[in-house]
Amino acid sequence: MNIYDISKKAGVSIATVSRVINGSSNVSEKTKAKVLAVIEEVGYTPNAFARGLGLNTMQTVGILCADSSDPYMANAISVLEKELRVYGYNIFLCCTGYDLEAKQQSLQFLVNKQVDALIFIGSNFINEDQKDNEYIKNVAKSIPVMIINGLLSSENIYSILADDYTAVYDATKAFIENGRKRIVYLHNNLTYSIRQKIRGYEKAMNEYSLAAHTVLIEYTQKSIKEVKEQLLNVHELIKDADVIMCANDTIAVGVLKYAKEKGLRIPTDVEILGHNNSYITLCTDPELSSIDNQLEELCKSCVSTLMGVFNGDTVPLRLVFPSVLVQRQTTSLPK
Amino acid sequence: MNIYDISKKAGVSIATVSRVINGSSNVSEKTKAKVLAVIEEVGYTPNAFARGLGLNTMQTVGILCADSSDPYMANAISVLEKELRVYGYNIFLCCTGYDLEAKQQSLQFLVNKQVDALIFIGSNFINEDQKDNEYIKNVAKSIPVMIINGLLSSENIYSILADDYTAVYDATKAFIENGRKRIVYLHNNLTYSIRQKIRGYEKAMNEYSLAAHTVLIEYTQKSIKEVKEQLLNVHELIKDADVIMCANDTIAVGVLKYAKEKGLRIPTDVEILGHNNSYITLCTDPELSSIDNQLEELCKSCVSTLMGVFNGDTVPLRLVFPSVLVQRQTTSLPK
Repeated sequence: MNIYDISKKAGVSIATVSRVINGSSNVSEKTKAKVLAVIEEVGYTPNAFARGLGLNTMQTVGILCADSSDPYMANAISVLEKELRVYGYNIFLCCTGYDLEAKQQSLQFLVNKQVDALIFIGSNFINEDQKDNEYIKNVAKSIPVMIINGLLSSENIYSILADDYTAVYDATKAFIENGRKRIVYLHNNLTYSIRQKIRGYEKAMNEYSLAAHTVLIEYTQKSIKEVKEQLLNVHELIKDADVIMCANDTIAVGVLKYAKEKGLRIPTDVEILGHNNSYITLCTDPELSSIDNQLEELCKSCVSTLMGVFNGDTVPLRLVFPSVLVQRQTTSLPK
Repeated sequence: MNIYDISKKAGVSIATVSRVINGSSNVSEKTKAKVLAVIEEVGYTPNAFARGLGLNTMQTVGILCADSSDPYMANAISVLEKELRVYGYNIFLCCTGYDLEAKQQSLQFLVNKQVDALIFIGSNFINEDQKDNEYIKNVAKSIPVMIINGLLSSENIYSILADDYTAVYDATKAFIENGRKRIVYLHNNLTYSIRQKIRGYEKAMNEYSLAAHTVLIEYTQKSIKEVKEQLLNVHELIKDADVIMCANDTIAVGVLKYAKEKGLRIPTDVEILGHNNSYITLCTDPELSSIDNQLEELCKSCVSTLMGVFNGDTVPLRLVFPSVLVQRQTTSLPK
């Protein structure tokens, strides 16, 4: 019997049960009595979830990411760790890789360690096939789950999202209104986040009756050489492009090198836009324009939301932050 | 009373006490009897250290790094986490920042969590002033301490080192023998690792009776813009250089951009060498030559050494790995 069962039996939300356990005044006497009656009836003792509320807590949060050496995820870990420490929480880190089974094992590992909450970094934990997300929904029955830049709708799961859809839609539209027509979109997989980006790109292209071309670039983690090789394979698809939009900065670096080798002038002949605004955008020459999804804000908001959950506050299940286009030298959009 | 006191009282090493606790056959009957007598006398029960030997263990290792968003440290975390998981260990991660007091607090936090061992990433935990290293030596009295690319000589502390000294010495010598004379060395602090690098540089310059010039470039984490501004301040010192060697790749990226802006031909007018061979060396144009200190090997060796310590095996207190110069487009050394 866990907090999830209590909430079902009492006919109230998990958050309400949390508030009762935590002694929050923000619950009606009637509801409180109902919840306490169920708790007494089933002999429920606050478990890992209750520990998250400050009762006999381990004060640890489990963080799952696919690969901590990815600059985007590394940055997220760094911010999350610092923010959590402010509240006296330490982190258990699991780098799961990209395989579903490995992710499930890591999750079980963290649950066995009785962490007070789980934070998933990045949308590659959320699968298109909903049954592959059941393992996350299951664990949310006992402890709060936070997902950074991934959406999963279920009780006790909180999504902190960048508005990738609007950011890419706006950028595509801006290129078109600036006179570009042959815009292609390169991506390396179809995570939740990238699906939103592609949706934004295709929407803008459709609105202007332009042909949308998305190209999958497959490469192992961070290998710019492989990106360049892949680009050779799809040369026919991209050789006439006047804008190449990329789902991440690594692809954009590869495209930039490729375009320079082909003798193209940047941004006159072709404009290149990355996504994530990571450190490497400053290392290239010319420096890369990129969409900043404000990861630091997302991470900070993730931690403050989690603390709200621990306190039994009413917190939103979904927070969406705007992304910002940071223009450097590879695009020439009007200010 | 801890394992350290036992070893003192029995007149044997901590490793020997470990072997006795662990039931290793690799101890003489006489020594074993002596240790067991002391253990019985003082009523010692295996503590956190013994847990590290597989007795009632939490199976967790604490990892300390200054900043997990630094690409070098992020890479180390990723490799360590993967390797430790193979042995069933999970990691507690603390990002301590660069302040001594914060480092000490993080360390205490991990010790309170009863981790089985500690791994320090990077030489910025080892201070020149030995009394500022006492906090690490103290904790090594109860649990094994591993230091990646930092040296601290004390029982139960294991250092896994890159041979930065020789790598920089060899590189400097190679530049000189290839006809270069005005070689400067840029660095951003004086950690143990960087002191070794500078020592190697100065030794080679001295051997050829050339003037050594080291320049301190102060910048906040990963700000290439700041590196470039700093270079303007020290322009007089570096304007005539025909080789600029850098203690890390971020400085080298800044130098590369600076040199291009000044209209210098690379590597004809000036050769540029980074250190760490991190991901960003591939993002620049031309691509950066860099000294690879084989971090992945260091991390793997760190974990296997730690498992040896847990098993009560005899393991070296210090392992030194060679570094390798990876030549790309910013240097023109003969093959």
